Amino acid sequence: MTDSMTDALVPGSVIGILGGGQLGRMLAIAAARLGLRCHVFEPSQDPPAGQVCETVTTASYDDTDALRAFADAVDVITYEFENIPTEALDLLETLRPIRPGREALRVSQDRLTEKTWLTDLGLLTAPFADIPDLPALEAALETIGTPAILKTRRFGYDGKGQVKIETPDQAADALAALNGAPAILEGFVPFRSEVSVIAARGLDGRVAAFDPGQNVHREGILRCTTVPAELSTAQRTDAVLLAGRILNALDYVGVMGVELFVTRSGLVVNEIAPRVHNSGHWTQAGCAVDQFEQHMRAVAGLPLGDGQRHADVVMENLIGHDMDRLPNLLSTADTQIHLYGKAETRPGRKMGHVNRIQRPA
Amino acid sequence: MTDSMTDALVPGSVIGILGGGQLGRMLAIAAARLGLRCHVFEPSQDPPAGQVCETVTTASYDDTDALRAFADAVDVITYEFENIPTEALDLLETLRPIRPGREALRVSQDRLTEKTWLTDLGLLTAPFADIPDLPALEAALETIGTPAILKTRRFGYDGKGQVKIETPDQAADALAALNGAPAILEGFVPFRSEVSVIAARGLDGRVAAFDPGQNVHREGILRCTTVPAELSTAQRTDAVLLAGRILNALDYVGVMGVELFVTRSGLVVNEIAPRVHNSGHWTQAGCAVDQFEQHMRAVAGLPLGDGQRHADVVMENLIGHDMDRLPNLLSTADTQIHLYGKAETRPGRKMGHVNRIQRPA
Repeated sequence: MTDSMTDALVPGSVIGILGGGQLGRMLAIAAARLGLRCHVFEPSQDPPAGQVCETVTTASYDDTDALRAFADAVDVITYEFENIPTEALDLLETLRPIRPGREALRVSQDRLTEKTWLTDLGLLTAPFADIPDLPALEAALETIGTPAILKTRRFGYDGKGQVKIETPDQAADALAALNGAPAILEGFVPFRSEVSVIAARGLDGRVAAFDPGQNVHREGILRCTTVPAELSTAQRTDAVLLAGRILNALDYVGVMGVELFVTRSGLVVNEIAPRVHNSGHWTQAGCAVDQFEQHMRAVAGLPLGDGQRHADVVMENLIGHDMDRLPNLLSTADTQIHLYGKAETRPGRKMGHVNRIQRPA
Repeated sequence: MTDSMTDALVPGSVIGILGGGQLGRMLAIAAARLGLRCHVFEPSQDPPAGQVCETVTTASYDDTDALRAFADAVDVITYEFENIPTEALDLLETLRPIRPGREALRVSQDRLTEKTWLTDLGLLTAPFADIPDLPALEAALETIGTPAILKTRRFGYDGKGQVKIETPDQAADALAALNGAPAILEGFVPFRSEVSVIAARGLDGRVAAFDPGQNVHREGILRCTTVPAELSTAQRTDAVLLAGRILNALDYVGVMGVELFVTRSGLVVNEIAPRVHNSGHWTQAGCAVDQFEQHMRAVAGLPLGDGQRHADVVMENLIGHDMDRLPNLLSTADTQIHLYGKAETRPGRKMGHVNRIQRPA
C-alpha cells in the first residue's frame, strides 16, 4: 500500500449514506463495485437506494437513537443531498467521519453564504443581495435591476423556492410568495451556455476533474448534459482550475458539482453542490470510473480515478411522463438506461436518465 | 408499446435469482438500472448478491416451503449457475416462468448430453465417449488417443472434476479419482485460440450477440478476455451464427456463453453455459448494455440491446492473491474495478475482475 492508502477503507467496510434517493442508489451500486457495503438512512418508506443495498434505517433526522445506531453500524458517513438538518450532523460528526466535511455543507446550504464565500474566493457570481425585508428587496432591485430572481436562502432545488421578478412593482408579491423565508435576490447573468464541472478531491488532497458537460435546463430542471461541452481549451482549463480552487479552499473530500455560466466576461459560478450531481451522470457511460465511484473512492480514502473520458455522451433526464418513451428507448442502439425504482410517475419527478453514446458520423 | 412488449415486466417487478454469487450480484445491479427488483435464493450465508438487492432467502434447494415462498414473491425466475437440483426446478416451474428454460439446463447440466446434442445439431465438438466403467475408458482411449481428459458428466466448473490422462496406463487411477461419478472422456483439440460468444435471445425470438472475446485460461480458470479477438471476418461471422443456431434450437431466453476453440478445421464448441459468463464481463466497459442487463432484459421480456461495442477492452480476473494488486489497480488509468464482496480471499477464488479500456496507441 502507498502512503495515501493508510486511511483507506478495506473491502467489506460499510459506508453510511444520508438520503435514499436516486443519487444514493447510484452511490450504493458504485460502492458495491469496490467491495464496499452501504447502509442508507432515509425518513421515507421504500427509498430508491434501499433496493440496492443491504441495510436501510427508516427514521427521521431528529431521531437521535436511530442516528446513533446508524453511526455505530458504519465506518464513514456521506450524503446524497445538502439539506441535512444541522442538529443531525452535529450528533453524527461526534461519532464518525462525515465526508465531504461540514464546511462544504455550511457554505452550500445557504445561497447567501455560498455566493459570499465564492466572491471572497475571488470568483465571479451573479450579482446578489441579502433580502431580510421589503425595503431591502426594493433597494436591491434598484441596484441589480430586473429581471431578477428572488430565492429562498435555503432548501431550494430544481427551481423550487424561486420567484422571477420582471418589474419592480412585483416585489411585494414575490416576497409574500416565499412565506417569510430568508431570501436572496440574484440578478440575471447573460450567458452563452451553462456548463458544469464534476470534480473530486481525495483524502490525500489530490484533485481530479471530469471533462466539463454542457447543460440544458427547462423549468428549472436539468434536461440534458452533453460532453464534450462547446468550450475553448482556455475555457475548459479555466473551468477545471476554478473547481479545483473551490475544492482546495474547502479541504473537500468527495465529488462536487460546480455549475458555471459561460459569459463574455468569463466563467460565472451559478452554484456548487457538495455531492454527486445530475450533470455528471454521463460519466457512467463515458469513463472507466464514474462520478459515483469517484465519490465513494474519495469517501473511502482510496485513490481517485483520473477522470479520463473514452466516449462522447449525451445524458438526458427522464422526467415524469418521459417514461412513456421507455419502450422506444430500450430499442435504441448505444443507449444506456438508468431507472430509479420509483413506484409512482409524477409530473416533474426525476424517474431515470439515459446516456447515449455518440459515435463519429 | 410494441407487440414484443406485451409480456414485458413493468418497472417495480421482481426477478428471482437462483444463486447469490458474483454473477447474481452483477445481474441484480443490472436489473436495478431497469427499475426491476431482485430476490435472491441462496443456501449459503451473506452471499455477494445479497449485498445489492432487497431480499435474500437463505435456504437449501430441498426446502420446498422456502422455494414456494420464493416463487410467490417473484414474477419470473432466472439463475446464475446451471447445476440447480432438478427437483427444485420441477417445483418452481409449476409456479413461475423459469428463463432460460428447462431444455437449456437439461442439455448443459450433463457434459455427455451437451456434446451429443451439439453434435446432433451438426456442430463440431472435441471427440468424446461415455465412460460408464473401466473397459469403456480403455476402449475410448484406443479410439480418442492420449492425451485426453476424463471429466465428471455433471457439476464440473473452473477445472474441477477433471483428470488429465497422459498415457493409457493411467486409466484406472483417473477413473478412481472421480469416485465413481458418471464420466465422459474428451480428446484434446489442437486449437490456435479460445474465443467465446456471449449471445442473447429475447422472449420475442430475436437474437443479439456481443463481439467474440479471446480467452486465456490458466489451471482451468479464465484469466483474461480480450476484445476484439484475433479472428477473420469469416470466423467472426461463423462464431455468431453458430451461437444463434444453439439459442434458436433451444428456444432460449436469456444470455448464453458459448466457448469455442479456433482450429484448422473450423470452430469447435468447447462448452455452453446457459447464463451470463465470465468471458462476457468486458461488456460492462465496452457496451451501452452489458451482458448482465442483456440477460435481465431477455428474462423480463424487454427488447435486447444490440450488442454494439464502443471500446476495446481487456478483462482480467482477480483470483486469490491478485487482490494484493488492488492499490495499484485503483491507481491505473482507464481501469474499471469490480469486486464481488467476498469476505475471505482464498487461492483460486474469484474475488473480482478489472476491465481495462484500451486506447489507440
